[in-house]
Amino acid sequence: MVQTVADVGEFGLIDLIAERTPTESNAIGIGDDAAVVQLHGHTVTSVDTLIEGRHFKHDWSDAADVGHRAAAASLADIAAMGARPRSLLLALAIPADTAVSWALELVDGVIAEIEPLSAYLVGGDVCRSDVATVSVTAVGETNRPVTRTGARVGDTLAIAGRQGWAAAGLTVLSRGFRSPRALVNAYQRPHPPYESGPAAAAAGATAMIDVSDGLLGDVRHLAQASGVLADLDSQQVPVSDQLVETASAFNVDPLTWVLAGGDDHALVATFPAEVNLPEMFNPIGRITDPAGQAPGVSVDGRPWTGSLGHDHFN
Amino acid sequence: MVQTVADVGEFGLIDLIAERTPTESNAIGIGDDAAVVQLHGHTVTSVDTLIEGRHFKHDWSDAADVGHRAAAASLADIAAMGARPRSLLLALAIPADTAVSWALELVDGVIAEIEPLSAYLVGGDVCRSDVATVSVTAVGETNRPVTRTGARVGDTLAIAGRQGWAAAGLTVLSRGFRSPRALVNAYQRPHPPYESGPAAAAAGATAMIDVSDGLLGDVRHLAQASGVLADLDSQQVPVSDQLVETASAFNVDPLTWVLAGGDDHALVATFPAEVNLPEMFNPIGRITDPAGQAPGVSVDGRPWTGSLGHDHFN
Repeated sequence: MVQTVADVGEFGLIDLIAERTPTESNAIGIGDDAAVVQLHGHTVTSVDTLIEGRHFKHDWSDAADVGHRAAAASLADIAAMGARPRSLLLALAIPADTAVSWALELVDGVIAEIEPLSAYLVGGDVCRSDVATVSVTAVGETNRPVTRTGARVGDTLAIAGRQGWAAAGLTVLSRGFRSPRALVNAYQRPHPPYESGPAAAAAGATAMIDVSDGLLGDVRHLAQASGVLADLDSQQVPVSDQLVETASAFNVDPLTWVLAGGDDHALVATFPAEVNLPEMFNPIGRITDPAGQAPGVSVDGRPWTGSLGHDHFN
Repeated sequence: MVQTVADVGEFGLIDLIAERTPTESNAIGIGDDAAVVQLHGHTVTSVDTLIEGRHFKHDWSDAADVGHRAAAASLADIAAMGARPRSLLLALAIPADTAVSWALELVDGVIAEIEPLSAYLVGGDVCRSDVATVSVTAVGETNRPVTRTGARVGDTLAIAGRQGWAAAGLTVLSRGFRSPRALVNAYQRPHPPYESGPAAAAAGATAMIDVSDGLLGDVRHLAQASGVLADLDSQQVPVSDQLVETASAFNVDPLTWVLAGGDDHALVATFPAEVNLPEMFNPIGRITDPAGQAPGVSVDGRPWTGSLGHDHFN
């Protein structure tokens, strides 16, 4: 018999979660009305939700994968402000017949994702829902928040982290395949370049965003928020051999993954031209004057206006 | 034609929310990867989720009610740590055919709940789900967090805020009635005694909890966390005339509402016997030595062990 969350109840499940969750010294974690931590500098908060059937499928993601992905989505937002995460809250709404082991493996995935960052799961909420809904709030700190609004004409546009791998992995899974494993893994457990966020802030980044809606779409968000034009150099946008090979096998243009994929949570930042880019950042374009046109994104100097279309790119 | 969230899309809805949401000066609110605020002292965080059909019904709660209730649940947890709320994140998962007006009225309810507290809605997340799921994260600050664990033998047990009103209102609604309005309103828009949390901390409260699982159940949580026995004086537990009258009309024992109801988010705290209780707190019992028995709750000196049963109370 599989033990379900209905068997152990809300408080039983919380106790089981608390048992396996490390607590930061001098902090108050799971088990009180709220969590308490001592932060320094500016406090940075973000929340992200994954819903069964929309953001994940049990066929394609095990419980730990869901935990990793849910945590990564919020943590990448913290990094994109130039901040370091300190604590996470997990709001878990799951059906009554969910196996306890599934819930605990999800928690283990969350903990495994934040442990290398010296961040802690400090609290959350457990309730029943017909649709599994996993909402993670991340709380971080920084002395120098980097927003989307500070990009200036002449700045270098640069990217850190993989881009397009998770989208390729999703294509692979949705076509019924399980390999290439590197791409499937990239979808199941993304590896956002968390350290690159604070590094960019320290190096003087003028603006930053994490790529969660597609590279062109998110660069456009940054450009519009800053009131500038972001011009991508199509020769500089990295397209790995792995993506090219797999795209060929699946009869897909690999640029679709690179330009429209978001699940890798790459970081895109702008830096003054004289700044040496921090390790892991590679230039992909430049900030230019919209010269009377609407702020947005262009590719190789030509305006890019479509919702997405790699035809515009070539 | 009712405009739905599918009509305006995720970003359209976020823009509409941002337009009506005041932003704290010197803070970064809705529209970036994450929110940024400057906090003082200890940072206190909590999350609470309301799910359509389980925690609210459209028949009994309008959108603003849901916003008020969702915010209140998280804010009461902040108060129960002795903290003041500073910012809120709203994770809203709603069906595609949800009216835009419903979503915006919910946001208005959240804002109306936090505005008197000088707290701000600073961010969140919008996505589609078959079941409306409203998750609110509250972030607060305090110089002296009050946990559940500090109650000591001889302390006075005291309560601030109404207790049993929301449960009575829910009974009224579930029997198909709409009055007494005061009780129905108490369910639809609770009024947790937010100010009493920091006041209790300042007065030297040794432990505190917000009543969200029932008075006896939550006092037991506090007592177990502190390793003590909490003895309630049945003569001191406040049962208002309004509750007595309505209970009589509905053939209910009003103590059921007072002892088992949680939705009012009253605060229960313990204070050293020599402390003058802060305004709004009234004594309801005393902390005693479990004397070899398991920590928990007793009533009029007799152990109370049931899950809930007002028979044990009399």
